[in-house]
Amino acid sequence: MATAQTHAVGLDIPIEADTYHMGPGTLRISRKAFHGKLRSRLLERLQAVLPEDQRGLIFLEGGKEQHQYTSDGEPLFRQEAYMHYLFGVQENDWFGALCVKTGKSYLFAPRLPDSYAVWMGKLKSLEEWRAKYGVDAVHWVDEMADVIRGLQPPCLHVLHGKNTDSGLDVLPPAAPPPGIPLEQQHLFPALTECRVFKTPEEVEVIRYANAVGSAAHAAMMRSCRPGLMEYQLEATFLHHCYSQGGCRSAMYTPIAASGPNAAILHYGHAGAPNDRQMCDGDLALLDCGCEYYVYGSDITTTWPVNGKFTPQQRGVYEAVMTAHRDVLAAMKPGVSWLSMQELAYRRILEGLAAAGLLAGGSVDDYLAAELGALFMPHGLGHFLGLNTHDVGGYPPAGPARSARPGFSRLRTARLLQPGMVITVEPGCYFNPVLLLPALEDPVQSKYLVRDVVMSYLQLGGVRLEDNVVVTEGGAESLTRVPRSVEEVERVMAGGDWPQ
Amino acid sequence: MATAQTHAVGLDIPIEADTYHMGPGTLRISRKAFHGKLRSRLLERLQAVLPEDQRGLIFLEGGKEQHQYTSDGEPLFRQEAYMHYLFGVQENDWFGALCVKTGKSYLFAPRLPDSYAVWMGKLKSLEEWRAKYGVDAVHWVDEMADVIRGLQPPCLHVLHGKNTDSGLDVLPPAAPPPGIPLEQQHLFPALTECRVFKTPEEVEVIRYANAVGSAAHAAMMRSCRPGLMEYQLEATFLHHCYSQGGCRSAMYTPIAASGPNAAILHYGHAGAPNDRQMCDGDLALLDCGCEYYVYGSDITTTWPVNGKFTPQQRGVYEAVMTAHRDVLAAMKPGVSWLSMQELAYRRILEGLAAAGLLAGGSVDDYLAAELGALFMPHGLGHFLGLNTHDVGGYPPAGPARSARPGFSRLRTARLLQPGMVITVEPGCYFNPVLLLPALEDPVQSKYLVRDVVMSYLQLGGVRLEDNVVVTEGGAESLTRVPRSVEEVERVMAGGDWPQ
Repeated sequence: MATAQTHAVGLDIPIEADTYHMGPGTLRISRKAFHGKLRSRLLERLQAVLPEDQRGLIFLEGGKEQHQYTSDGEPLFRQEAYMHYLFGVQENDWFGALCVKTGKSYLFAPRLPDSYAVWMGKLKSLEEWRAKYGVDAVHWVDEMADVIRGLQPPCLHVLHGKNTDSGLDVLPPAAPPPGIPLEQQHLFPALTECRVFKTPEEVEVIRYANAVGSAAHAAMMRSCRPGLMEYQLEATFLHHCYSQGGCRSAMYTPIAASGPNAAILHYGHAGAPNDRQMCDGDLALLDCGCEYYVYGSDITTTWPVNGKFTPQQRGVYEAVMTAHRDVLAAMKPGVSWLSMQELAYRRILEGLAAAGLLAGGSVDDYLAAELGALFMPHGLGHFLGLNTHDVGGYPPAGPARSARPGFSRLRTARLLQPGMVITVEPGCYFNPVLLLPALEDPVQSKYLVRDVVMSYLQLGGVRLEDNVVVTEGGAESLTRVPRSVEEVERVMAGGDWPQ
Repeated sequence: MATAQTHAVGLDIPIEADTYHMGPGTLRISRKAFHGKLRSRLLERLQAVLPEDQRGLIFLEGGKEQHQYTSDGEPLFRQEAYMHYLFGVQENDWFGALCVKTGKSYLFAPRLPDSYAVWMGKLKSLEEWRAKYGVDAVHWVDEMADVIRGLQPPCLHVLHGKNTDSGLDVLPPAAPPPGIPLEQQHLFPALTECRVFKTPEEVEVIRYANAVGSAAHAAMMRSCRPGLMEYQLEATFLHHCYSQGGCRSAMYTPIAASGPNAAILHYGHAGAPNDRQMCDGDLALLDCGCEYYVYGSDITTTWPVNGKFTPQQRGVYEAVMTAHRDVLAAMKPGVSWLSMQELAYRRILEGLAAAGLLAGGSVDDYLAAELGALFMPHGLGHFLGLNTHDVGGYPPAGPARSARPGFSRLRTARLLQPGMVITVEPGCYFNPVLLLPALEDPVQSKYLVRDVVMSYLQLGGVRLEDNVVVTEGGAESLTRVPRSVEEVERVMAGGDWPQ
């Protein structure tokens, strides 16, 4: 399979009871080693702040069985991200615990009736579960309260906090074992902060999801032609990721936007389901990522439906590509993500000025008039991991969210540090919802060349998105898609990728 | 596209503002006509039972935006089934109302901030929404209480009941417009009963989902070979349904089971994700259906991974195919579904006796010893529509669920009536979880030929599933997959389907 060549790292791991993999050519992960390391990191962080008498038991509730409304249809189970992070459990209705003092790890599995074997497959014994997940002990959930009481922990550390992307509350388990004090202050910030800094093994999984997703983007490019429906590109992406990479799910609802739809940032949802027929002369913007072992890729490519950029399309494309390239080159530990947003805006505005859309001022003038957010109303990028918009963007200690247009949409304002995985996704869009009012705005309109701007309204937009890990000395992109105009046109003409 | 040839009915419908379709070759549905007819049927049913002073307003709450746990990831929205049935609304957080007295239909759309246009696309006006959904009026949700009070209904009819497959409660809207009495007795049974009897237009949608799904099953057969992973067949199915038929979602988690896995009735879930490598000599059992306009298909085929049945496989296959054929031939209005389960058991047990697995008694003896449920522990079929296990199987008036092994798993015990769409899915499995205890059971073991039974344990199982509409004079299958041994082997060798 293609991915075997592009990504052989996991193949060094022998297949044991605790190995996750999806067959030949797919990445192998030792659950015991992978999550053992993540648990150790959390323990180190907590041991550094917790006094002896608070070194209790970390206690997590995994995801529950869900139903499609009131029917008996069950969506494919995806483990809750914090639970997956520490334990890697694939099944619903489990609990996990980790002793801060001893480092011992415990899992609690639902005891299923024998008849489940007919519907769900052979029921595993506790020892088989222990071997699969590589923890110190597995017990049944109905024994959990007794087992945990027997460990005599001074307290249970439970999650309690707020997801800064959704604004939703992360709540403690609904019914923790009774009689043990709950400690809600430390676990959420510590575990969230752990998730911000990926281990090399986590980066390998994201790299794998990028190898698979990148090849799938190339497959979409090769399959594209005028007359296709947008969703037929999405279908090609999903098929490639699953059949060639073992990635069963998309990381998020794929965006397959053509023509003016490319300016709609979350196009592809149920109300606008990638259902336009693509025309000769359109640009297509594909924002599609896949999921492997609950980690994801989040990749965007943009290309002409007919395989050849027009001069107008090429001008915008190269402005965005310059932003993309220069941000990647400037990223390194200590750099503020806000400054990268500004750098991207500068490059895009320079490109728009060169193309004749802006005039009458300097790039500094355009920036001050907030023309950056006019053409790119979203943030430059976000953390990526077990969630597409991964946690930890705005820790309580700051830096706080900017109030400035465009910058306010950033999902983090932090300084870059090694181990962060973040998307770099500059874009430039021609959205009448924003541009038409701007042409009437006294501040912005004086720099907008009306007739030229109007001639771009059908272009839609361009976005180029890589997934990037911050290293000690800079940053490395994990994404390998055709990027230059020449690469895109060559692959769309049927050329191999990677070359 | 393939589906244009297999299903041209919808193409007669011109594309208007209220047309649902997914582009060339896909089925066209006039929302106004489709849901208008469904609303009329409900009104007739309610007008027949409700006195004048209870002819109030039917009030439904649509599905809400959902999140993946506490993240900002949103699963693709799928409308709640009762709401889709009456109104066909694709978007989340709507409400619908229908006046029992006047027949007028109302929808209430969430008023979104202008900034949503940047993320979700151009905001529609109320008139544009009205044109899309073909109702009498659309208002904003924030005006709903006033609008409904202005209609001065004597009561609001709201859903309240229990789904007989999931056991979950269907509850009234959380916050109905205040000050109007709620009537909870009539709507749920009436609307549920409506859903049991499909209109010809509903049958056409299910027929389309069957045409797409049937062709996708043939595509899986053609792509199969030893060494493939089970999920690579699933990927082929999903890709065909989406790229060729515009079916974005599977109707349920696909089951791609090979070898012994075929005996696991709900294989393919997150804990057993179709991740076995298929071997030469295995049978593969594929239970995969797709969804179009929220209606689904639910199709099962079984075939040898290497393309040629062994004599052992063929014997079991033909026993199940005989059951399948004879049930289809016997189905007609007035026939009890329980009697069809018994007919299927008879044919399967006759086949097993002919193959030498059973001896020492008559088929009546085997039936009395509950050997039917030993080899086929599930029901013969279930209603199909907006849910895979569609509603209305056990209405309060009966017939009640049987307590007998196997029969107790039936999702309905009703007499067949025209307009019912029901699956016909006899199966025969060799599951050690059931067979090994049976070989020790004093009643069952005397008819089981131990050595022969043991020699079948690696076979897994066979299931053959069609979707069938009951007609005035009998029943019609909507499914068109290769079924006979000859058809299967020919298509697996690369033959066209349909011929």
